[in-house]
Amino acid sequence: MLRRVIVLRYGHRPKRDKRISTHLALVARAFGAHEIWFDSKDNKLERKLNQVNENFGGNFIVKTGVDWLEALKNAKKMEWCIVHLTMYGLPLPQVIEKIRKEERNLLILVGGPKVPRVFFEIADYNVSITNQPHSEVAAIAVFLDWFYSGREFDFKFEGARLEIVPSERGKVVRVLR
Amino acid sequence: MLRRVIVLRYGHRPKRDKRISTHLALVARAFGAHEIWFDSKDNKLERKLNQVNENFGGNFIVKTGVDWLEALKNAKKMEWCIVHLTMYGLPLPQVIEKIRKEERNLLILVGGPKVPRVFFEIADYNVSITNQPHSEVAAIAVFLDWFYSGREFDFKFEGARLEIVPSERGKVVRVLR
Repeated sequence: MLRRVIVLRYGHRPKRDKRISTHLALVARAFGAHEIWFDSKDNKLERKLNQVNENFGGNFIVKTGVDWLEALKNAKKMEWCIVHLTMYGLPLPQVIEKIRKEERNLLILVGGPKVPRVFFEIADYNVSITNQPHSEVAAIAVFLDWFYSGREFDFKFEGARLEIVPSERGKVVRVLR
Repeated sequence: MLRRVIVLRYGHRPKRDKRISTHLALVARAFGAHEIWFDSKDNKLERKLNQVNENFGGNFIVKTGVDWLEALKNAKKMEWCIVHLTMYGLPLPQVIEKIRKEERNLLILVGGPKVPRVFFEIADYNVSITNQPHSEVAAIAVFLDWFYSGREFDFKFEGARLEIVPSERGKVVRVLR
């Protein structure tokens, strides 16, 4: 069975992080994660992503109001592979081959500037996407792109209402239903 | 001479986009662009990135309040290669090899949901990073990662005050001066 890839976002503040969290969820979906979990409750964010599923297909799951510590403990108990994306970790190119070979479900932790110490301790892999400060949005995208070796460009999202047709110039949208 | 890689961000609204624009600038810097230009004036954003240069090195340039149309016309006149990142364009894997071979300076256009029609027309390449909706932050990161074929993991930022030492667990920061 195909393993699940789930992103857990720590430290979501519904008002302040509105756009960053939306970007994170959209990126997780577009680059092939199956679910994203946020620690604070945020109905708007859930609705927004369900709307995107409705239009562009697939069954990406957004959960908000998730108890992150409980989620971590469960993941550990069920022996999922836990990857923590942090600028302090080992460079992606050094560890990605090992992670690709894991056959366990994958829980990817991302935080803002500050994350609980336990993230570093519980993770099977602390992974840096360069050791420069940048963005959890970029980190998730580049991690998944490497993880899937670029296959995300061929992913299909079943049941879409709209389909973008790649074109050299301009916007071509196919309306499927 | 090494060509310049410059990101032009259209439609920056200093208040609403504060965090997204900061992430964009940090990602451009971390993934090897030399400059980022924003259309609206934003001193805070400039200061923030200068602070990052001060701490983490390099001489990444942030310009705000740039007349985007003027900038586009100039780029065209100087025969720069113009790449527009858009979910409607041709898939990255299809065009990246051609773009890597270009020897001209590179101007990378990113917008929010709406961009002027001229972007599609003036661009040498309209490039999609998947045809799903996601994030300009992710688009820039993945584009540059492919453009540099992962070499951004080895980029050095000269004159840094702080250096992150990649580690398996925890945070190791070397203070250089």
